[in-house]
Amino acid sequence: MSTNELLQQLRQLSTSLYNKDFLLTWEHSEEEIKAVLATAQILKNLHKEGRSFRQFDTGLAISIFRDNSTRTRFSFASAVNALGLGLSELDEVKSQVAHGETVRETANMISFLAEVIGIRDDMYLGEGNKYMREVGDAVQEGYEKGVLHRRPSVINLQCDIDHPTQTLADLAHLRNHFGSLEALRGKKIAMTWAYSPSYGKPLSVPQGIIGLMTRFGMNVSLASPKGYDLIQDVVTLAGDNSARSGGSFSVVGSMEDAFAGADIVYPKSWAPFSVMQRRTELLKKSDKAGLAALEKECLSNNAIYKNWECDEKKMKLTKDGAALYMHCLPADISGVSCDQGEVSAAVFEKYRIATYQEASYKPFVIAALVMLTRLKNVPDALGRVAK
Amino acid sequence: MSTNELLQQLRQLSTSLYNKDFLLTWEHSEEEIKAVLATAQILKNLHKEGRSFRQFDTGLAISIFRDNSTRTRFSFASAVNALGLGLSELDEVKSQVAHGETVRETANMISFLAEVIGIRDDMYLGEGNKYMREVGDAVQEGYEKGVLHRRPSVINLQCDIDHPTQTLADLAHLRNHFGSLEALRGKKIAMTWAYSPSYGKPLSVPQGIIGLMTRFGMNVSLASPKGYDLIQDVVTLAGDNSARSGGSFSVVGSMEDAFAGADIVYPKSWAPFSVMQRRTELLKKSDKAGLAALEKECLSNNAIYKNWECDEKKMKLTKDGAALYMHCLPADISGVSCDQGEVSAAVFEKYRIATYQEASYKPFVIAALVMLTRLKNVPDALGRVAK
Amino acid sequence: MSTNELLQQLRQLSTSLYNKDFLLTWEHSEEEIKAVLATAQILKNLHKEGRSFRQFDTGLAISIFRDNSTRTRFSFASAVNALGLGLSELDEVKSQVAHGETVRETANMISFLAEVIGIRDDMYLGEGNKYMREVGDAVQEGYEKGVLHRRPSVINLQCDIDHPTQTLADLAHLRNHFGSLEALRGKKIAMTWAYSPSYGKPLSVPQGIIGLMTRFGMNVSLASPKGYDLIQDVVTLAGDNSARSGGSFSVVGSMEDAFAGADIVYPKSWAPFSVMQRRTELLKKSDKAGLAALEKECLSNNAIYKNWECDEKKMKLTKDGAALYMHCLPADISGVSCDQGEVSAAVFEKYRIATYQEASYKPFVIAALVMLTRLKNVPDALGRVAK
Repeated sequence: MSTNELLQQLRQLSTSLYNKDFLLTWEHSEEEIKAVLATAQILKNLHKEGRSFRQFDTGLAISIFRDNSTRTRFSFASAVNALGLGLSELDEVKSQVAHGETVRETANMISFLAEVIGIRDDMYLGEGNKYMREVGDAVQEGYEKGVLHRRPSVINLQCDIDHPTQTLADLAHLRNHFGSLEALRGKKIAMTWAYSPSYGKPLSVPQGIIGLMTRFGMNVSLASPKGYDLIQDVVTLAGDNSARSGGSFSVVGSMEDAFAGADIVYPKSWAPFSVMQRRTELLKKSDKAGLAALEKECLSNNAIYKNWECDEKKMKLTKDGAALYMHCLPADISGVSCDQGEVSAAVFEKYRIATYQEASYKPFVIAALVMLTRLKNVPDALGRVAK
Repeated sequence: MSTNELLQQLRQLSTSLYNKDFLLTWEHSEEEIKAVLATAQILKNLHKEGRSFRQFDTGLAISIFRDNSTRTRFSFASAVNALGLGLSELDEVKSQVAHGETVRETANMISFLAEVIGIRDDMYLGEGNKYMREVGDAVQEGYEKGVLHRRPSVINLQCDIDHPTQTLADLAHLRNHFGSLEALRGKKIAMTWAYSPSYGKPLSVPQGIIGLMTRFGMNVSLASPKGYDLIQDVVTLAGDNSARSGGSFSVVGSMEDAFAGADIVYPKSWAPFSVMQRRTELLKKSDKAGLAALEKECLSNNAIYKNWECDEKKMKLTKDGAALYMHCLPADISGVSCDQGEVSAAVFEKYRIATYQEASYKPFVIAALVMLTRLKNVPDALGRVAK
Repeated sequence: MSTNELLQQLRQLSTSLYNKDFLLTWEHSEEEIKAVLATAQILKNLHKEGRSFRQFDTGLAISIFRDNSTRTRFSFASAVNALGLGLSELDEVKSQVAHGETVRETANMISFLAEVIGIRDDMYLGEGNKYMREVGDAVQEGYEKGVLHRRPSVINLQCDIDHPTQTLADLAHLRNHFGSLEALRGKKIAMTWAYSPSYGKPLSVPQGIIGLMTRFGMNVSLASPKGYDLIQDVVTLAGDNSARSGGSFSVVGSMEDAFAGADIVYPKSWAPFSVMQRRTELLKKSDKAGLAALEKECLSNNAIYKNWECDEKKMKLTKDGAALYMHCLPADISGVSCDQGEVSAAVFEKYRIATYQEASYKPFVIAALVMLTRLKNVPDALGRVAK
């Protein structure tokens, strides 16, 4: 779709994202999701044409990474730079946050000239999203009491529950691949667990995928070995979503069942919910011996399911043997990045460039979220730079 | 005061800050202090109105943090970003500074395209301010010899002697609270030690407060337990200041005495001068055992003075029981950030938002210092962006 | 030369640097080297006049430092800031690069909105330059496959083979000192090993110097103690260069021989090639004991050659006793930064400001490389900002 058509579409969508946070996709309407996608695509078009879509003369974007990150870190850095904001990372080792300072206070202290706060906090179950809300509440209070002149928006760069910038990039990729969001109706997507020689991978991607894709009439099939559960509330929500959107949602017990007839496959490792709970408790207690024991137990449990690998044989089960393979990267690739992992080298290589393209939407999705939460009239702002 | 009135006031002040460093408030005239405050307030007004006050198209601001910092770090980042400068931190662990390179050389090497160097160095008594002067001398030489095209200004972001960006923000807060600098004449401010379950807190805030507030006709009362001395030269200077400004300066032996009839209270922990001296020697020798022993000794000495807590009972002693509570943050809040600390939870909560507002001046004070030290004609520059 | 004359000169040079990497000076024609120097000098002139030479509205510059750096880090930060790019450092400790992710993938993931990737990787012989080419190949593939809208250029900020931003700055300094590149014809430069109480210093500076200076008709004399060899291919290349350029290249066995009649001396320590090879193997195996043993062996071997110090007596051997002393900094200065080192305090102090001026070209050389590799028509772009 052309930039002008997208702009026209965007003008017709009713959204109320201004001065809000963006923490879970399911807290936002379909129209808002569509607005994010349209905005992101316009920004991507403009960048491809070598045109600046800068919106701010100055201002800070703050990132708080409570877990390692390369892709999301650079996507956020790219997005805020393109909008004209300067990036400051709150490094909690360097800063005094670790010395008993309250979240509330710190959130205000770093926000005097800030437009956006991007947070990644996915290590502790029950904590990451909660922390983001605390930061959001703190800057809301600061704004209302006149401490802050502007109300920076908090953007979830991955928490214990959802990974909205990833799944919205995934959705943009699917829309692009299949031609439109409407074309996704009736398509089958297999969100399945896959074997990995590491443990403790967050639940946010599979949860985010089933929470988002069920809203667009897709047939979502979730598969994992017994015991590799997700947060139950999100699974319930996925079922409710699909009932409303006219798609379907099923939980199956094998990668093969999920792959059967699938248009899209998303094989990715995650830790069982119960392990994440135990891990959270051990992390809170800084129980290193306990963590090492849990890792050992979990890895040996994982190893039972080494056959949960996305290989060419399983890909043959998909629609015309040609489903679109997706991954949030980095994938554990058998014989490449590990001995045995989530995906065979042959399958990954076939879709390697496609996964890069999938990832390429993320900076533009983040820029879209910043624009929609910080600017009152995004269509006009885009119209100005797209002229 | 409106931006136009402030601009008019600023035009009448005689200052010579251009191409200079800003290291101690008492090295600068009252007119210069007033110019900093007027400029900061204009910038704050502009930001509140959502207007950019950018002054540079490109250029670097360099920060050197030789001690942890969140607030000052973000205030500096915010200020230089708002002026259009890019921030580069000299991280002395990453860099080769630790490998015997001279300050003189490094100062020039990092400054080829720099406008300002902000330094925090408050750990070593007799060292921090000295280091800042060495950096200032080095870039002055580089500028005179044609190595540097421009002469970056060195700004003290907290040293062993003073913390000018904090105390100027505090003064801006007081001016705002009481209506004008003139209104501060005759007001009593109690700068008092307070108990904290930590040791080694710098002397720069209490020293900076008595060194600055005594210049505006205030009645400054300094209180601490016996032995918790500040640098004697600064205490002497405070007395001289108040003699000249028509205020008063007294040293008293209890928080209660200082609070009696006070309009403003500033209860904050610091380490005794003699402890800081011993600590400096031990740090220089990297004597870990000695440092641990000193910490133990000092904490148990602190514990004798647990009653030096700013609580509601003591606040009742102040003028109409309603003095303005100030703190540079983070405060050690009893029952919140520690078992027992500098201030009771009830007092802090009552003034919490006020302390946030106090802090909110800091980025604008820093931006004002950068403008006044880097631009020849600040009123004209402000006039252009305020149009 | 005036900016207008330089611009005229630049317009007559035939270059094809656009969308390319810059990894070794000898992969680029004399005209391209001259274009880099002319562009750098124009940018330096503009900066001296207080004029912005910004070229980008937004966009990222990425730096990857796999070894410590202060000077090059700040030169890169200064250069990209002056061009309007935001800097993001890929910190491989923080990021997931260390977790088995492929270079190819990471290179694309960080480059979606990037214009340039500066890399320092000089620790592993046979690895640094190779890594840079892998990154270049990866972004080339991403660009060709449509993953990247733009093709960021990779710029060598020091590898195991060459240090082009240093040697080009050195060449700019020489051109400035002697009046023109033509004036360098027939001048003798002594690139000699010097004693240092440290080991493992990269070979890239001496190799880069003999690889570059032999192209401009200079008489290049390389000196080192027996066994302190450079990479043989580069030595051979230096001989070939000088045969073509009409200069000479000789390898001699003492600092005195090299200094005799020299117009320029560049005394600098490096590790023997064979030591770097052994060190590379030990680093790959993380063999700490082996590394410690190698360091000890190497330091005691170095100590045999303590007389390889650039002192006033040896300087008397140079042309009129007044050769230009050069160093990439930081120098190991006897009695200043170490007990005994590469250069005596008296010689260094005499040339200290000159070495600062030598270094001052580096940010402008880097900015020139970014412009020439990222902009189709640099003379026009410079013409616009120089108007």
